[in-house]
This record gives sequence, structure tokens and C-alpha cells, in this order.
Amino acid sequence: MNYISIQDINSLSKWVKSALKIKKNPLKNQELGKNKTLGMLFFNPSLRTRLSTQKAAINLGMNVMVMNFTNEGWTLEFEDGAIMDSGASEHIKEAAEVVSQYCDIIAIRAFAGLADKEKDYAETVISGFLKYATVPIVNMESAVRHPMQSLADAITMEEYKTKHKPKVVLSWAPHPKALPQAVANSFVEMMQMQKDMDFVITHPEGYELSPEITKDCKIEYDQNKAFENADFVYVKNWSNFKDYGKVTNTDPNWTVTAEKMALTNNGKFMHCLPVRRNVIVSDEVLDGENSIVIQQANNRTYSAQLVLQKILKKL
Amino acid sequence: MNYISIQDINSLSKWVKSALKIKKNPLKNQELGKNKTLGMLFFNPSLRTRLSTQKAAINLGMNVMVMNFTNEGWTLEFEDGAIMDSGASEHIKEAAEVVSQYCDIIAIRAFAGLADKEKDYAETVISGFLKYATVPIVNMESAVRHPMQSLADAITMEEYKTKHKPKVVLSWAPHPKALPQAVANSFVEMMQMQKDMDFVITHPEGYELSPEITKDCKIEYDQNKAFENADFVYVKNWSNFKDYGKVTNTDPNWTVTAEKMALTNNGKFMHCLPVRRNVIVSDEVLDGENSIVIQQANNRTYSAQLVLQKILKKL
Amino acid sequence: MNYISIQDINSLSKWVKSALKIKKNPLKNQELGKNKTLGMLFFNPSLRTRLSTQKAAINLGMNVMVMNFTNEGWTLEFEDGAIMDSGASEHIKEAAEVVSQYCDIIAIRAFAGLADKEKDYAETVISGFLKYATVPIVNMESAVRHPMQSLADAITMEEYKTKHKPKVVLSWAPHPKALPQAVANSFVEMMQMQKDMDFVITHPEGYELSPEITKDCKIEYDQNKAFENADFVYVKNWSNFKDYGKVTNTDPNWTVTAEKMALTNNGKFMHCLPVRRNVIVSDEVLDGENSIVIQQANNRTYSAQLVLQKILKKL
Repeated sequence: MNYISIQDINSLSKWVKSALKIKKNPLKNQELGKNKTLGMLFFNPSLRTRLSTQKAAINLGMNVMVMNFTNEGWTLEFEDGAIMDSGASEHIKEAAEVVSQYCDIIAIRAFAGLADKEKDYAETVISGFLKYATVPIVNMESAVRHPMQSLADAITMEEYKTKHKPKVVLSWAPHPKALPQAVANSFVEMMQMQKDMDFVITHPEGYELSPEITKDCKIEYDQNKAFENADFVYVKNWSNFKDYGKVTNTDPNWTVTAEKMALTNNGKFMHCLPVRRNVIVSDEVLDGENSIVIQQANNRTYSAQLVLQKILKKL
Repeated sequence: MNYISIQDINSLSKWVKSALKIKKNPLKNQELGKNKTLGMLFFNPSLRTRLSTQKAAINLGMNVMVMNFTNEGWTLEFEDGAIMDSGASEHIKEAAEVVSQYCDIIAIRAFAGLADKEKDYAETVISGFLKYATVPIVNMESAVRHPMQSLADAITMEEYKTKHKPKVVLSWAPHPKALPQAVANSFVEMMQMQKDMDFVITHPEGYELSPEITKDCKIEYDQNKAFENADFVYVKNWSNFKDYGKVTNTDPNWTVTAEKMALTNNGKFMHCLPVRRNVIVSDEVLDGENSIVIQQANNRTYSAQLVLQKILKKL
Repeated sequence: MNYISIQDINSLSKWVKSALKIKKNPLKNQELGKNKTLGMLFFNPSLRTRLSTQKAAINLGMNVMVMNFTNEGWTLEFEDGAIMDSGASEHIKEAAEVVSQYCDIIAIRAFAGLADKEKDYAETVISGFLKYATVPIVNMESAVRHPMQSLADAITMEEYKTKHKPKVVLSWAPHPKALPQAVANSFVEMMQMQKDMDFVITHPEGYELSPEITKDCKIEYDQNKAFENADFVYVKNWSNFKDYGKVTNTDPNWTVTAEKMALTNNGKFMHCLPVRRNVIVSDEVLDGENSIVIQQANNRTYSAQLVLQKILKKL
């Protein structure tokens, strides 16, 4: 069993229930991971994902080994048949096969490069590990997806929803740098698995996510209209998908403010963090009592722990 | 309970006694830290502090998670109300609150920038964590203080003192690079808590530490005179406090040599390390039998372990 | 007991047998390392060595502390009597003595600089630690040697040999960058301890390894002739020893191909990894059924575990 995409979840509602059980008693399964080793491979920086996944593994009694590829100056080749006479010193085939021998589970972070859409959306790194590793693979944010985040988001919404069929808005917001679409993509995929939620995506025209991800999700270009009666507002910047990886819009009118939140149904504010204050969202909203970003980050531990626990049980 | 400054110690003599007890039997409290996690956050490099604090945590049965902010390219915003449209990608508020959820204790290293005296002496980083974290904070060297070092220094002096009221000299020595005042500051604050020690600070004129730190400590600008009959000579470079963060003096006459040590009462040589040989101190002194720098470094483990143990008992 | 060179092994055949026993039951000695700490110091990047050595320590129940000197910007001075007024901030003497107090075993990686043959072959870094550390030292690849790799190589050959006296070839192959001679050197030293193996080294003229290492080993400048009837082909690039640290030959005719392997006695292909595909060796050979590079990497864990186990038993 791997955990690459939110679609690796057979029943989202059951998973969410299981995660909330883990949250009540996180040390219950300390024997499960005994003498099992989690290898955490980082091709990009990480704070929340690094610490929460490590904490989850510790809660399960696992050993953790961390490898920072970027800091180590270690680059991998992903092309089959490459003549490796420059650049990368090792092919993904050897790296994945070798690391599999030292670890029981491998967790990987490898962001989109945002230069080559096809390469990014082919999920070169995580696919390479999936192809060549001989142990389960966990996605700690790949080029296209961040499914441990989205599972944590689902857990958080379950905790904070106040009615049977809440309205959930995914809103784009401005950001000075080009960011991947991974968090938004996985959130959309997770929402498509929710049975009793109304979901709408709002962003400036031209900022459409991949249609293969959004499928028939409702898109509303008027942010104010989208926010009306929302129970959850999930905010995230992403760079342009069509004009790939470019920042073509930094319109401050899309910043989430108290005025905009006033349009909602006393809606909760969510963001995966890190968040740029007064760019993505105003201090007033982020520090307000309807902001649940800290609780959301806390659920990263239980999201990761559920994933590791499911995999450990199948080892 | 936090450990930010040596002034967080209620009774220095009792703490020193407790640390010496720990040193005799460091594994006695292995159950105390079971299932507790220490998060170590480094905004600057560390060798001794990193390894000794980690070792202390291990001795107490704790789990340790390490995050290197500098290497990760992760910078934090500390200003309230900042419009975060450039530079830092995360505010201390979120970072501190989030990491608090994954750790039972957070230890932080964040040196003085030496560019802005007010900002440094406001202890921006450690104060930010104190303000927003929801778990105890331990100072692994902040802009202004290094209280785990000073506690280790007190332990070491207790072990090596040969008379009731020893004379202790804190001596500046030259160094090619601008160094923070933190070690000297905390040493001064620790000496102010010592009941039976004569204390004198010696440095070139113009190299006064903050008067808010040194208060009424005796200052002697003649290094030779200061060394007379000293039982302990604690040597440390610091950059100029008045002409803030500048190196305005590299006078090799301040290097500690055997001739100077001959003026002391068979005095012990101390330094927090790392030390530049034949700049701060001559090989002869550092390698001599009165040098106790290695023993001093060893006590870093027991200093850290005492601090963690005190905090764990109050969790 | 230290493990610096393959010559620290008293009986290679006994060590290989012990390692194969460990491989069958790697968790048998989990009590041996309890409350013992391995300090892993990296002056250079590492993937296999880092993870396999850490895994070995975990298998033995040890605690592991990792310090990356390069990433931390920490450089050491190795010269006695140096006036340290620029460059390195700490002398090996203090660093080694201090770290010895926090660790029960210190493992070190410090590659050849390839600029100064005398300095490299004096093994400045590892010798400095040997001189000043007060705990056992393990070599995770020094300027001249990589004995944990060579022990893994011996274990692997024992597993895959099909006749009493196999023929083993060490073959140079081209590489775009200047690489150390350490792996080749240690392999040669290990082969000199093998009783029942025919050994030949092949490389272009001018690419002779240190004669103090190769002694009276057979050298064959014709790669094809060397490969004839070989049972194991161990391939590795190294930079020029005479014209020290230079790449004076990148002749693609030395790349190991299926045609060349056809000259062998159904020979196994070995390489320590990372390996540059289609430069050192063709895909066809590396992916072929006679390639045992992955199994070889797996044995790194048992090689390291045997070394640590031997040291732990003598602590």
C-alpha cells in the first residue's frame, strides 16, 4: 500500500473517523512500529510536514532516518537511458532500490519545479520512487499533490462543521512568488470524495487549475459571491496552470479580509501554512476566533499517523 | 517554566548541586522523558550545544526532532502587522504555535545579527517564541544570552575551585570576526548570582558590555592587574557593544599567554569553545594542565539535562 | 578498537561469516547498544553510508546523533601550532575531545580534497580524530580508504561466489569529475587479505593507484584481457594518483558493456554506487541479472553493524 494521492483512500469518512480516534489516544499503537524504520527524503524544505510526520512515526514507535537531498547536494537522474556524463550522480533506480533496503516505509517531498508542466504533472520524482522502490511510498508533497495535508483538512472540517451539509470554498489569494498547485489540487480531489458538502472554487479568470483535477467542480470567478454563506473558506495561492508556473496576477483585492469573511455563514478560515500575513489574509482574519489554521496544522500529526498506521498494518 | 536567562534559576547553588548529582548517574531519570519530544530549532550553526542537548534529552528518555532553519532556507517574520509580500514566508506566531503542537519542549538557537542593537537586545526571536509558543522554551543561545553555557560554567567552577572565595576574571581577547556578547553577558549574570566569588571583568576601554548587564560589576582595564591572584580566568571575545557589532580592536597584547597566566593564583583557564588558538589563547595555555575547557564542555550535557529535567517535572 | 582501514580486521573470513550471521538475524543484539550513542560526523555528502550506518546502529539499539559540518559552515583546523586568525574557527583537538564526551563511538566521513596528495594521504582528518578523540573511531570514507564499503564487498562476494578460487577484476572506468581513490584503495587492500581469489587490476596506463597500496598486485592495462574468465568485475572510477586529483582520461572505451562482460565467466558486476549510467557502465549490464550492486548496497548495513558490534563488545 502506498499513499500518493487522496484517491488512495477507500472511504474518506472512515479514515477521518479513524484519525479522530488516533487523536484521542495517539500512543495506543506504539508497538505497531517497533523495529520499523521510516526514511524521510526531502528534496525541498519542510517544517510542518517534517515535524508532524516524524512525530507521527515516533507515536507509532518507529525509528526515523532523515535525508535532505538539497542540502546534501545530491541530485538524481530520472530519465531512462540517460548518458549521465554531467549533472546528476545517481539514477532514481539505484537510489530507490537501495533506500528500500534500509527502510520499511519511504516518505518523499519533491515539489513541482514549475518550469515544465508535463514533467511536473508526470510526477517524475514520486513516480520514479513508486516504480523502483520495493517498500511503501508516502507522499509528503509531490509536484502535483499533497494528500497528507488534504487528509488533515478533512479531519479538521469534520471537527468544526456545524451542520449536515456545509458549504466549502477554495479561494485563490495573491502571493509574490510562484507556488505549486499541489495543495489546491489535493484539496479539490478530497472535496470530490466528500458526500455532504457543497463545494465551489473561486479564483481570477485565467487561474484555472488543471481540468483533469477539477473535473466538474463549480467555479465562481466572483470571490464575494463564492464566499456567500460559506461555512469553510480554504485559502491558498497557486501559480498559473495555463501560463505554467507564472505569477500573472497579484491583485490585492483577492486578499481575504474581515469584510469578505462577513459574507460567509460565520465561516471558518483555513490555510495549510506557511501563510503570508496581509497578502494572503489580513491579520484580523488570521488572528480571529474563526481561524482554525493552528488546529488544522495539529491534525497533520494524526493524518500522517493514520497513513503510517494503515501501511504498517499491511507490512 | 522556561529557561531563557540564568535568572530563571532560583538558587544557583542548589542547581549546581543537582547537576553534579545528574553527572554521577545520568541515566537515573530515563523514565521522566518517555514519550516526550524535544524540538531543537537552529537558526545558526551548533556543535557542542546541538550534541550535548541532544545527549541530555536522550539520557532522559526523550525523543528529539531537529530543524535547521538556515539550511532549510526558512526565514520567519517577527514584526506584528507586517505585510509579508517579500522575504519571510511565515510569521513567528504561526511557527511557534504550530511547533508547540508537535513538541513538549522547544529549544532554540538564534544568534545576534549584530547589525541592529535594539532588535538584538529586544531578543526578537526568543521573545517571539516565548510570546506565541504554548510549551516551555529553552534558550540554546539567543541574541543576548547563553544561559545553558553559563550554568555549565558554574558547575565547572564548583568542581575545580580550591578555596572558599575564589577570584574569577572574565577577560576579553581578540578575534578576527564580530562575535555576539551572549556568552559574556550570561557569564556576568551568573557571576552576579554567585555568593562567594570575587569577580572582575577586564577588556580594552571602549569594549564595555551593556551596563544593564554588568550593573556594578568591577571593571579593570589593565588585563595584567585583573589576572593577579585569579583562581579562574574565563576568556571570551565579544564585538563592540557601543559601536555595535563592530570589531574595533584586535590587539594581540590581549591574547592570553603563559606569562599572563603566571600572574594568577595557579588559575584555571576556561573558554566556552570553539576557540581560535594563538589568537584568543596560546597553545601553551590551552594545552596546559590548568586548562579545563574540555571538562567545561562536558558539563554542557549535565547543564542541559538539569534544565530539561526541571521542565519535564513541571509538565 | 578503531575501524580505520580494512587492515583493522584480524581475520577477514571470520568477519565475513559473522556479518552473514548478523544478516540472518539483525535484531539479535538489540541490547548491546542500549544507552550507547553513535555520533556521525559528515564533512561530505552521504546517502548509502549515512542510512546504512544509522540503520545498523538502530539494529543494535544505539542512539544516533548526526552532525553535518559542511552544511553547518563549520570548518576545523588540523595544523598544530596554527595561528587561527582566519578560516577555521575550531581546532580538531578540541572538536575531537569534546565530541568524545557526548558519544561512545564516533563515525566520520571526510573525503580527499584531491588538491594536495601529501595532505590527503596523511589522512589529516581521520588521523586528527584518532589522535585526539578518546572514544573509538569508525571510518565512513576518509581521504584514502572506505573500509566499511570493502567489508560489504567481501560479504557480497562470499554470497555470490560459485567456485573455490574466483577471479576478481578491479576495473577503472571513465567519469566526468575527479573522484577520490578511497574505494579502489580499500578494495585492493581487502583483496590482499583474500586467500583464495585471483586478483587483477585494470586501468589505462598512467592511472596506477599508489604503489604503497597496490604493492605486488597484478596490473593488466588491457581491460579485455583482464576481464577474461573473471567471476567478479568490480568497477570504479578514480582520479589520477600521479598527476594528483586530475581527470587525464575519459576514454569511453573503458565503459563496461555487455560485450566486455561477455568475456567473463558469467561474471558478476559490482559497483559501490552511486554510479553514472552509460558512462561507467551501460544500462544493459547494470540492469542485467548478473549485476549485484543492489545486494552489495544492502550489505552495507551488515558491514557497519559488524563493525559497531565488535566495538561495542570491547567498550
